[in-house]
This record gives sequence, C-alpha cells and structure tokens, in this order.
Amino acid sequence: MTIHVRVVTPHTTPRPHKLAGLRSLQQRFTQLTLSQAGIDAGPASIEGSFDEALAVPGVIASCLQAQADGVDCVVIDCMGDPGLEAARESVAIPVLGSCETTLHVAAALGHKFGVVTILDRVRPLLERRAQIYGLDRKLACVRSVNVPVLQIGEDTDRLSDALLEQSRAAIERDHADTIVLGCTGFIGLSERLSTALSEAGLHAPVLDPLRTAVSTGVSLVALGISHSQLAYPRANFAKRIHGFPMIVEKLSESR
Amino acid sequence: MTIHVRVVTPHTTPRPHKLAGLRSLQQRFTQLTLSQAGIDAGPASIEGSFDEALAVPGVIASCLQAQADGVDCVVIDCMGDPGLEAARESVAIPVLGSCETTLHVAAALGHKFGVVTILDRVRPLLERRAQIYGLDRKLACVRSVNVPVLQIGEDTDRLSDALLEQSRAAIERDHADTIVLGCTGFIGLSERLSTALSEAGLHAPVLDPLRTAVSTGVSLVALGISHSQLAYPRANFAKRIHGFPMIVEKLSESR
Amino acid sequence: MTIHVRVVTPHTTPRPHKLAGLRSLQQRFTQLTLSQAGIDAGPASIEGSFDEALAVPGVIASCLQAQADGVDCVVIDCMGDPGLEAARESVAIPVLGSCETTLHVAAALGHKFGVVTILDRVRPLLERRAQIYGLDRKLACVRSVNVPVLQIGEDTDRLSDALLEQSRAAIERDHADTIVLGCTGFIGLSERLSTALSEAGLHAPVLDPLRTAVSTGVSLVALGISHSQLAYPRANFAKRIHGFPMIVEKLSESR
Amino acid sequence: MTIHVRVVTPHTTPRPHKLAGLRSLQQRFTQLTLSQAGIDAGPASIEGSFDEALAVPGVIASCLQAQADGVDCVVIDCMGDPGLEAARESVAIPVLGSCETTLHVAAALGHKFGVVTILDRVRPLLERRAQIYGLDRKLACVRSVNVPVLQIGEDTDRLSDALLEQSRAAIERDHADTIVLGCTGFIGLSERLSTALSEAGLHAPVLDPLRTAVSTGVSLVALGISHSQLAYPRANFAKRIHGFPMIVEKLSESR
Amino acid sequence: MTIHVRVVTPHTTPRPHKLAGLRSLQQRFTQLTLSQAGIDAGPASIEGSFDEALAVPGVIASCLQAQADGVDCVVIDCMGDPGLEAARESVAIPVLGSCETTLHVAAALGHKFGVVTILDRVRPLLERRAQIYGLDRKLACVRSVNVPVLQIGEDTDRLSDALLEQSRAAIERDHADTIVLGCTGFIGLSERLSTALSEAGLHAPVLDPLRTAVSTGVSLVALGISHSQLAYPRANFAKRIHGFPMIVEKLSESR
Amino acid sequence: MTIHVRVVTPHTTPRPHKLAGLRSLQQRFTQLTLSQAGIDAGPASIEGSFDEALAVPGVIASCLQAQADGVDCVVIDCMGDPGLEAARESVAIPVLGSCETTLHVAAALGHKFGVVTILDRVRPLLERRAQIYGLDRKLACVRSVNVPVLQIGEDTDRLSDALLEQSRAAIERDHADTIVLGCTGFIGLSERLSTALSEAGLHAPVLDPLRTAVSTGVSLVALGISHSQLAYPRANFAKRIHGFPMIVEKLSESR
Repeated sequence: MTIHVRVVTPHTTPRPHKLAGLRSLQQRFTQLTLSQAGIDAGPASIEGSFDEALAVPGVIASCLQAQADGVDCVVIDCMGDPGLEAARESVAIPVLGSCETTLHVAAALGHKFGVVTILDRVRPLLERRAQIYGLDRKLACVRSVNVPVLQIGEDTDRLSDALLEQSRAAIERDHADTIVLGCTGFIGLSERLSTALSEAGLHAPVLDPLRTAVSTGVSLVALGISHSQLAYPRANFAKRIHGFPMIVEKLSESR
Repeated sequence: MTIHVRVVTPHTTPRPHKLAGLRSLQQRFTQLTLSQAGIDAGPASIEGSFDEALAVPGVIASCLQAQADGVDCVVIDCMGDPGLEAARESVAIPVLGSCETTLHVAAALGHKFGVVTILDRVRPLLERRAQIYGLDRKLACVRSVNVPVLQIGEDTDRLSDALLEQSRAAIERDHADTIVLGCTGFIGLSERLSTALSEAGLHAPVLDPLRTAVSTGVSLVALGISHSQLAYPRANFAKRIHGFPMIVEKLSESR
Repeated sequence: MTIHVRVVTPHTTPRPHKLAGLRSLQQRFTQLTLSQAGIDAGPASIEGSFDEALAVPGVIASCLQAQADGVDCVVIDCMGDPGLEAARESVAIPVLGSCETTLHVAAALGHKFGVVTILDRVRPLLERRAQIYGLDRKLACVRSVNVPVLQIGEDTDRLSDALLEQSRAAIERDHADTIVLGCTGFIGLSERLSTALSEAGLHAPVLDPLRTAVSTGVSLVALGISHSQLAYPRANFAKRIHGFPMIVEKLSESR
Repeated sequence: MTIHVRVVTPHTTPRPHKLAGLRSLQQRFTQLTLSQAGIDAGPASIEGSFDEALAVPGVIASCLQAQADGVDCVVIDCMGDPGLEAARESVAIPVLGSCETTLHVAAALGHKFGVVTILDRVRPLLERRAQIYGLDRKLACVRSVNVPVLQIGEDTDRLSDALLEQSRAAIERDHADTIVLGCTGFIGLSERLSTALSEAGLHAPVLDPLRTAVSTGVSLVALGISHSQLAYPRANFAKRIHGFPMIVEKLSESR
Repeated sequence: MTIHVRVVTPHTTPRPHKLAGLRSLQQRFTQLTLSQAGIDAGPASIEGSFDEALAVPGVIASCLQAQADGVDCVVIDCMGDPGLEAARESVAIPVLGSCETTLHVAAALGHKFGVVTILDRVRPLLERRAQIYGLDRKLACVRSVNVPVLQIGEDTDRLSDALLEQSRAAIERDHADTIVLGCTGFIGLSERLSTALSEAGLHAPVLDPLRTAVSTGVSLVALGISHSQLAYPRANFAKRIHGFPMIVEKLSESR
Repeated sequence: MTIHVRVVTPHTTPRPHKLAGLRSLQQRFTQLTLSQAGIDAGPASIEGSFDEALAVPGVIASCLQAQADGVDCVVIDCMGDPGLEAARESVAIPVLGSCETTLHVAAALGHKFGVVTILDRVRPLLERRAQIYGLDRKLACVRSVNVPVLQIGEDTDRLSDALLEQSRAAIERDHADTIVLGCTGFIGLSERLSTALSEAGLHAPVLDPLRTAVSTGVSLVALGISHSQLAYPRANFAKRIHGFPMIVEKLSESR
C-alpha cells in the first residue's frame, strides 16, 4: 500500500533537485511515492507577502489537481506556507505547510528553536507564522544569511559557513536549542550544518523543513488523519468566481 | 487641500451603497474626497480563506491603480483585510485594513471588545487577525448572526435583532465593553444597534469598521504618516511574474 | 462645524509651544479648533509615578472644565497618560491619552514599534502602559536619551543626535520598524528624526504622540464615538469627597 | 524586637474594625505591632479609578508619615492598591498592596484563583491589577456580590450567602481552586466562607487580603527586604510642587 | 531496514491490548517493529502527580534498557508524559511523550484542540503540560468523562457515549475544532468517536495519543532526528546515586 | 505557640550549614522552630531533571514523615522544587517550594527579576518553573556563574565575584530590578552581593530562596492557610504501589 505525497512548489522557477533531496526519506519509507508540481502563474521566487499573494491561486489549483490525481497528501514547498489555509478549505486530503509542520516538530525536540533563513526581509513573515501557529514563545529568533533564494545554489561553501555562523549565534546568543532551516531551498544542507555544529560542541538537531513536512505527511496518512473541517470549512464552490480559469475548471471537473 | 480616500471593495459584487454609508463622515470632514474601486477577478463575496485568496491579486492591482491616480490613502473594504500585507509591499501611500484599524480603535475605547459578524465560519479568520495584530487579549469574543454576506440587505429588522442579541451576549456573557461590527457589509446598522443597546442600559460604543477605517485614514494622511517600509519592504518588482497581467501592466506603467 | 480639541498639560510648567507644534495639523483639518489647559496643583514635570499621582486631580478638574466648556475631545499631553481612567469615569466626551492612542496607531503601521523617551527611569512606566493597553507583544523596546523633561529645549542638536542614535538601535538591535517619540515634550522633533533615519536607509515612520493623539481625537469626534461607559463607569458623584475643592466645585456646578 | 506594620486605609470613612480583624495574626506573631492611618482628603470609599485618584495623595502623605514615625512596613488597605507605585517612589520602607500581595500568595497555593468582590464595576480594575502584576493567566475570574462597600456590614448573612454562591461558581464554572476576597472590607468573613465551602466538598483556601498582606509584610521585614529602588526610583523631591501642602510639609520635614 | 519503537507503559498494571491497538499502524508501516515494556516499581495507574512521581524511576530504567536493546525510539504510554525530561537526559535515542507529541500534531490540524480525559482531577496536569509545551493558547479545554483509568474497559458503550458528549461540548461550547483523547487507555475508541461526531455534522479529527506518538516516532527515526541535547543535557552519571539499583545497574552496564 | 518549619533537603549530601544560614530569621521570629531532613535514596546533588526524578520519592517520604511528626510546614530546599506537586497531593500541611515562593516574592518587589544560578544547564528548568508558576513575563533572565553545586563552598571570593558580575548583567543588560539567587546552596551570600550591588549604585533587593521560603512558610502558618486541595487533590493511597517501601510504610502507619 503506497503513500503518495505531492510536493507543491509555489513559484515558477523549476526546482527538480527538491525530489532528489528527499530520496533518503524514501529509503526509510519504502511505501512512499513522491511527485512534484509547480504553478503556472506566479512569482519566480517567494521573498515577501506580494510574492506569496501571487503564488496562492496556483497552489490552490495544484492542490485541487493533486486530490483529483488520488494523491494522499500535499506538502507546500515554502517556509511562508502560501495558500495553506485556502488549500485546506478546498480539498479533503491533508495539506501540510513546511513551516507549520516543522515548527511543531522542532518545538517538541527542545525548549526553543531558532530559524535561520535567507533574507532579513522575511523575518516578520516567519515571526507571524510562528505566532499564528501558537509557537511564538518557543521561537528563540529568526536569523538570516542574506542570500536571495535564487542565488542559494551559487556558492555552497559560503552559504554553509553563513548557516553555521547564524546557527551558532542562535544557540549562543538567543538560547535556541534546535535549529530550523528557514527556507525549503536549503534542502541538502542540514547534514553538513549538523556536523559542523556538533564539531563545535553544539549538539542541536537541525531540521530540513521540506523533509520534515514530507515525513510528517507520511505519518498523518498512516494515521488516517487530515486537517479539521471545522477549522477550515469547505469553501462554497457554488458562488460565482470571476477569472482564475485554472481553479474554476478544476472545480467544475470535480463536480 | 483635499484628502482623497479610495475604498477598495475586494469582491466582484457591486456595492455602491458603501459610499452612501460614508456620507456622514464627509459632512464632518469637508476636505474628504471618496472614491470606490472593485476588483475584476475574484469571488462574489468573502467568507473564508479561499475567497480571500482569490481577492488578493485584484486588491493589489487596485492599490497600484489608486497610487497611480494620486489617491492619498486606500481602505480595504472587508473585515478579513485581504491583501493588506501584499498591498503595503506594493505602494507607498497608506493602505488600511478595516479590521486592523477598527480593532485598534476599539481597543483604545475600553478594556475588551466583542466582534459580531456574519457567519460562524469566519470566527477563526477574525480571531487570527486579532492575534496577528497583537490584540487577542483585548478580544472578548467573536459572535455571529449567521446571515451570509449576500443576504445582509434582505431583512434588516431581523438582522438588527440578531445584532442586538449577539451584542448583548458579548457584553453580558463575555464581558465585552465595546462592540465591533464584524463585516463591512453591516454599514448603516451601527446607529440603530447603538441606540438599542443604550435603551437596554448597555452604553457600549458600536464601531462600523468601514467608517472607522476611512476616518482613521484621513487622520493618518493629515499626520503625513504611512505604514512602515521596514515592516513591509517594497516588493522586488524586477523579478519575473508569470500571469496576473493586470498587475504586471500597472507595474510596467509605473516604471 | 468645528471640532474643538483641548490639550490638557498635566503639570504646572507652562508649555505654550505645544499648540504651535500642532499648527501643521490645523492646516490639514480646517475644522479643528485647539485650546490648551494646564493644572493648578501638581508637579513641575512628570518623570515617575509620584509626579503622576499629584497631576491626576488637576487632570480630572481640567476634563470636567473642558466638558463644561463644550469642548469635543480632550487629549492628555503626557506619555504616562496620567488620570486617563479617572477622567474617563468623570466625563462623557472622549478623553484620549497620548500614549494609548499613539501606541495603537504605531501598532497598525508595522509589526513592532520602539519607544524613545527621556530617562531610563520612565521605562517601567511606559512598559506598564503598553501592557495595560494589550500591546506589550508589539513593543520592541523602550530606549531613552537621558535628558530630563525640563532640559529638552536646551540643546536641540544634541537631543536630535541622541534620538537618532537610540532610534537606530531600536531598529537595528531590537527589530523595531516604527518609532514612537516617548515624551510629548519632543514635539517638533519628529520630522528631523524621520529625515535622518531615511538618510540612513531606515524608512521607519516616526510618531509624535501629541499630534497623533489630537489627530485621532478629530477622527473619533467625526465618527461620533467616545470611550465605553461599560469600561469606565461614571463615578458616583453623590458620594462625599473631602478636600479637592476644584473638583468638588466643578461637580456641583454641573449638577 | 517588634515589627511595626501600619495599615493605611485610603478613604475618609473610619474603619476601626480592621485592626480588630487582624488580632488573630497578632496572636501568632507576638512581635507584631499594628497601627492604622486614614487619609484627610479623598473619597468616602473606593469603587473605581476616580475614587482611587483622589485617594492617592493621602496615601503618599500617610506613607511619608509612617516612615517618619519609624514604622517598619506599610500595607495599603484596599484591593485597588491605590498609590502603591507612587508611595514606593516616596519611601524606603516596604509598602505592600493588599491586592498585589494576596494575588501572589494565592497564585502559589494552586493553579488558578478566583476573586470575589463587591461590584461588577470594579472587575476591570482588578483584572488590570492582575495583568500589571503578571498574574492574569492565573486569574480564573473576578465575580461580584453586588453590594457597595459602605453597605458591607449591613446584612452579614446575605453577604455570606452571596460570597458562597459566587465562590462556588468561581470553582465550578471557572475552575478556580483558590478564593481571594476581593475587598479588604470583607475582613472577618473568610473563616465562615471557608467552612461553608468545605461543607460543600470544595476544599479551597480562602484568602483575606488585608490579613495576607500584613502577614507577608511581617515576613518581608523579618527578611530585611523592601521593594526595588530600580523598579521604583526615588522621586525627585527637589522639583517644585504646587498645592498638596500635606505632602510638601512632610517632605520638607524629612530633609 | 526496520524501525523499532518501544512503548513504555509507566505503571504496574499489564496492558497487553495496547500493542493490539497499534496494529493498524503496522499495516501502513511495514518497517515498524513494536515492543512494550512496563515498570517494576510504581503505581497501578496514573491519576496525579503522586502517581507520576513513583512511575518516573521505572520509566528511566526502561529507556536505558531500550537503548541497550538497540531500540530506535521510545514512546511513553501516558498523557502525563511522566519522566519525559529525565529520560531524555538519560538516552540518545528519541523519547516521545504521548501528550507532547499529540498536542503538537493536533495544533497543526486546526486552530484549537479540546482534550477529553478520564477524571477532572487530571485537568490541571494536562493544562500544565500544554503550557510547558507552549500550546496553552491552542488548548480550547480539558474535559473529562469521570471514569477512573482502571475501569476504562468495563462499559465501552457508556464510555463512548460520554466521550461523544464531552467532545460535542468541547466543539460547541469551547470552540475546539480538533479532539485529543486525553488518556492512552482510550486506545481503540477514536474511530467510533470520530464516526459519531461526523454523524452529528461535526467533522473534527480525533487523535488517539499513543498511535499518534508511535507514528510520529517512526517519522522522526526516518528523519534521523532526536531530541536536543542542548535542551536535555546528558545527566552526569559519574555522580553517586543512593538507591535505585535498577537504574544504577543499567548505567554501570552501559559504561 | 511555636511554628515548626522543616527544611527538606532533596539530595543525599549532608547540608548542615543550611540551618545555620537561617539563624537570622529565627532572631526575628522567636516562635520559629526549625528542623532539617535529607533523603535516603537519591542523587548527590540536583543539576537536572534526571537528578530531580530520583530525588522526588525521598521528598514525598520526608513530607509524610514531617506531617506525622506534627511539623507545621515543609520547605523543599532546592530551586527546582522537586516533588512539590506530588508532596502537596500527599499531605495537608503546607509544602512550599523554594523556587515558587521566592519568584512570587520577587515579582511583588519590582517589575522584573533576574535569577543567577549555578550552571547554564539548569536554565531551562528554571525557565520552565517560572512558566508553570505563571511568572515567565516577570522573568528578566536566568544567568549562571558556572560552578557545580558541590563546589559552591570551595572559593567563596571567586563565587561572590561571579554572582556580582552576573547580577550586574541581569540589571544592566536584561533590565532586572530584583535579583533571585538561583540555588539554595548560595545561602549566606546574599548580604555580600546586596552590599556590592549597592556600592555599584544598583539598589536591587537580593533574595535568598531558602530564607524567603521559610519566612513565607511562617507567614502562611500564621494565616492558617495551606495549598489548595482542589489544585492538588489528595492521592488515592488505596491503590497498590509496587516498590518504594519507605513511602508505603509511612502511608500504612498513617492509616
């Protein structure tokens, strides 16, 4: 019996390496099938609320498609969790946010977690997410390496150094005991960071958000549990929608 | 010297009576010029996160247009404040949310405010807004009359009775001392509710959110103040956007 | 139709320049009439709870007088909001605290505001105000320039430099995105500070509390709203009061 | 070695029975000397912020006198703690508020305490006190018997019944596990209430605030500890004060 | 590659049906190996802090044994999470509390969860757990069916009815949108409750804590993550321990 | 009439100097009788949750013995308050935690207190205690001198210097206004620290936790008050306990 998790990447830049970064999970979960979908309309990357706003309709469409495809669970591949609430109002299968899921896992591993992300400008967004999820008192800090998303792959050594530096500061200055990578684009960097921290005597778990969310998605599917329809009441699809043909089409197909 | 406030109504159902409901404000503020804009694509009304998600791109486009038109201030005409953060990342002129603004005004009039809204299903959305705005401890309750937005005008007497009943419960059971109407569609109903409460010996201010937001917008313009660019850093408009021609066009015009 | 706002300055040192500092507001609000009242008995300046305690009876008397004079709204001209609750229990017209009002306006402009005030010793008072108003989680910091109130006018350049330095620290170290001047005596200094911050690349709004409170007072009067009588129940003036002839007289006049 | 505690009753109605109500404490603390002082100017009773405001100057004068008299500790005999902060800025000997002290003792006896007080109208004041003292999350409820202070002695049976009824509700509906009498005028009623609760199977401690504060005052004096001067910095008595001759005189005497 | 999770049941009453209740999970996770261990010394059941205190040394011994046995992950089979912190200071393999884990999963499924447990007397314990885990603001209520642990199996119909009644109250009165079974002894009852709630139109997920913790444990092992050693620093086993031979022996074996 | 307070020292290392450190209290409270009890089984010192777990059964036994001995009040002599809740479920006489009691006393002396303790590794434990007691918002910081408990007496000068350094930092960097010694082993060091702080112009009270708890215990006994049985319901001693002969014996004696 397979468990099919779809990674919905909420921007228009192709990100095929994401699935590669999840391969180690598949070795542990032989029943896990993975697929990935992007969005047709939206921003090239997500670095703020404007970008998120343009990504959300595509995320909804992708989630409707995933449900139509018989997928078991969707993971939104971005630490801003764009469209999480709207998607949950649209489909019955579990939709997980990389941020929400990872912050809860981090919160249960220690007393305070620190998030190390890309740019200072997304700090308020991540702090707001932590607050909405009820976890602001567990959040030690949001720190950033100041590398734009689209340059993440360019100089991995420099990036790893910056991640280590900010993670140390999160631990030593802000009393974080657990590190959350604050961008799903950092996939593949958690082991190196974890090793470097251990070598510095700082035995903090390092969470890769996309992997954590996919693994938690598998666990939810195994439990037969999805998000609460009382919390996310099904949208009234009978109401007229102007524009957004992709969504309207998928809705009419699903009737 | 006029102060031009534009009301951006974030759904596709025409709402011309909104400006009529603001006329009393114009009598006090002779310098106030009002205009209204809807959105081209989006939902017929807003009753959840799905509806909000489809409204946001239109709100952004409307705000860009308002700034191009030389408007002084934009008020988003919905208690969910759809697109507030994204719009603030898009323009320099002040963008006010009906919810954020009214909750802060209410918080300064007493110790706890109660919100009376349309449907139970929007309670979590309004509670989340209060939390994001840092006002959850001032929120006594969110109660609802259970009338969908599009039926608000149908039976004003029944609606007024329901508003009174829920407002009384907010005061007597939940210790609210100030009442916030939880839907901008309730415009024109606050005086009647206020009178009815006073007749019941309950001297609580009743805030109409659209009026409160427009009046506060006038005050901000008079002070020469807008939202913080540190909190809402300008979006990087140089990044490629797929789709959303209305927004892309307006951005290219403004260069 | 004029809107008459009275500034009640809660100490015995004359402060005629306060009205001058509000002139720019009057240019935007042609309907605004301003007047100012001091107190007869009380401290020379307010720098702690002892000073506040002695200011409060005079503030109450001034508010009773303002109401008798037909004033539309009173603003208490001090960031400690001395007498705010007692005055609201005494009169029906809106009484606004410079602190309460400005903190709520600041909270709606960004995510976290920093307050820059006169002396370290008033930090706890301002923190307590933020807490009472339910805004402590929006307060990034209270910093001070360490200049006593009565020396504010003596060396404006040095003071402006100190305000800039502390505002920068509030932004860069404490993550404030909005600056609140933490003393109404700083009137006239906000533009210079705002400009200096912008030149440093820090585009944070700077709020002058007295101006902000007066402007908000105008907005409240335009809305026809006052503080909640459920939150601030009218004092029982039938009870015998010993001493405080100024208050007793005004109460007997108003019967 | 005696420990002299002075009870400062912050209104003008004589309350000689208060010391009688403290006699049982003196039987346990043979070293305890008690005295009582009223105020010359102020309200007849305290039932709101207006009353408190007029009581505060007298409380300050009484505390200055107590220190001049060589008293070891002052307890303010009112659950609103009027003048607590100002008095602490005025004298070096410990000044205890009946409210602050009792809420902290109550908080350490269980998980949540309920306060049963005189009138609904003082609920917000007591809630604000709990918040200022950092104990709002330990406060289960503030309930009231709706008897004005000056009528407390009139019908003790009815009052005791009402206290029992509201205490039961606090326990059974609001999950309080400890009861705080919310008015120092209730002195002498705690044993009866405690017995009645026990007979109903509700083994909750009942705290009389004046007794609790005096007993805690003895403990502080024994420890040689007073309030923090960093939190309550000494007022600058060199500044000119207009009016308030009683305070000014005592200050000049103490120089 | 198997994943071996050991269920540590922290009392002396045999509970063989627990593993049976986890069989459905094993059908989804073919790599999952389950084992169970009790404790030799301790209480017959856990219904308070006294019971927990006596269970903890046995839990520590069981966790040391589990690690020595090469187990991948331990789950403590009780909603009080007895010994969670101490066990995490003792072993490197992940130790999960049924409570901590389930509350975090519940928190991510909706806005507020309600816990339905055995006895009123454990309410404070569960509330304290929620607070320690930083989730008190997500906790709608703790309600109980008032059936002692050791009688759970006696009348399943009555118990199911009581669970339904309290779950409905949690949803309808306390605004819970997700239900957490508040005792691991309720294993096997979640499906029936979930169905009954759905039939009543209340589409809330129902979480069985033991299953949820085991499934999350599998997910953590797959991720290669354990609790933070910075949060739970390894105990100093070199210090002399008097008594507790079971623990001392296991410690000396592991050297 | 004497008041007998027993100090329960929850580890196996003899600590006779503790009673000596309490002698000054006895000079103020002539009615105070002091006794001390250790535990037979447990750790040599308490520096984490593992140590605490092994101390708790002994603490329970000691409290049962104290009650059998006719003692009036028990104080647990450790800042982790090991066994506080379990002991309160076991006996009717008041059981006070050094931590809980001292944090509440500290909270009432100022706005924020700082705790200076032994080792960084106990910071999370003390933060959790503050949170459980509802005082986390009053906690400015937990700082440590990094001296293990068993080395406290070795170099008093170095230790005093370190306490001064960390207390200064707590005041100057973290805005503490009151200092709490974060280990009962620091007894006898508070006067020296207090003097040194005063000489540095920092007039902060310094609280010795054991003394503070004993003095507060005397006050509670004088008031005739104990912890709430609703909060700490009596344990069901009829249930079978395996092991823990010391506790089982005392329970059977007390029947």
